[in-house]
Amino acid sequence: MKKSVFYHAGCPVCVSVEQDIVSLIGQDQVEIVHLGESSGRIDEAERLGVKSVPALLTPSGNVLHLNFGASMEDLKS
Amino acid sequence: MKKSVFYHAGCPVCVSVEQDIVSLIGQDQVEIVHLGESSGRIDEAERLGVKSVPALLTPSGNVLHLNFGASMEDLKS
Repeated sequence: MKKSVFYHAGCPVCVSVEQDIVSLIGQDQVEIVHLGESSGRIDEAERLGVKSVPALLTPSGNVLHLNFGASMEDLKS
Repeated sequence: MKKSVFYHAGCPVCVSVEQDIVSLIGQDQVEIVHLGESSGRIDEAERLGVKSVPALLTPSGNVLHLNFGASMEDLKS
């Protein structure tokens, strides 16, 4: 199965949700991307439909926005 | 492991997210609660921290609000 991708930015909400997601779907099933450290991937995330972090891109290509930590605009400023 | 609980209200956003969640964490790991049909459980959901649907209550007791379908107030009206 294709992996999910979890986009976050290190915010407290992100860290808490990350622990839940890893625990629910398994660490080997999800790639974790820190958009603060990997800002080169912000464009990719936006193109895929990520509007805020934390967000989970599922193997089917849907984006689940989980609670709310920061908007993509916040990450660019 | 304790099951997760997925609260929804039959809205299009809810149905789409439900398919993703079941596919990600497995049907036997999640109880699906339709708050439109089981309105007696709205109080329970709110007490646990659900502010909108769809939402996932994790085994650790955290609530993940997934995208946005409807607020709990909408369900009561």
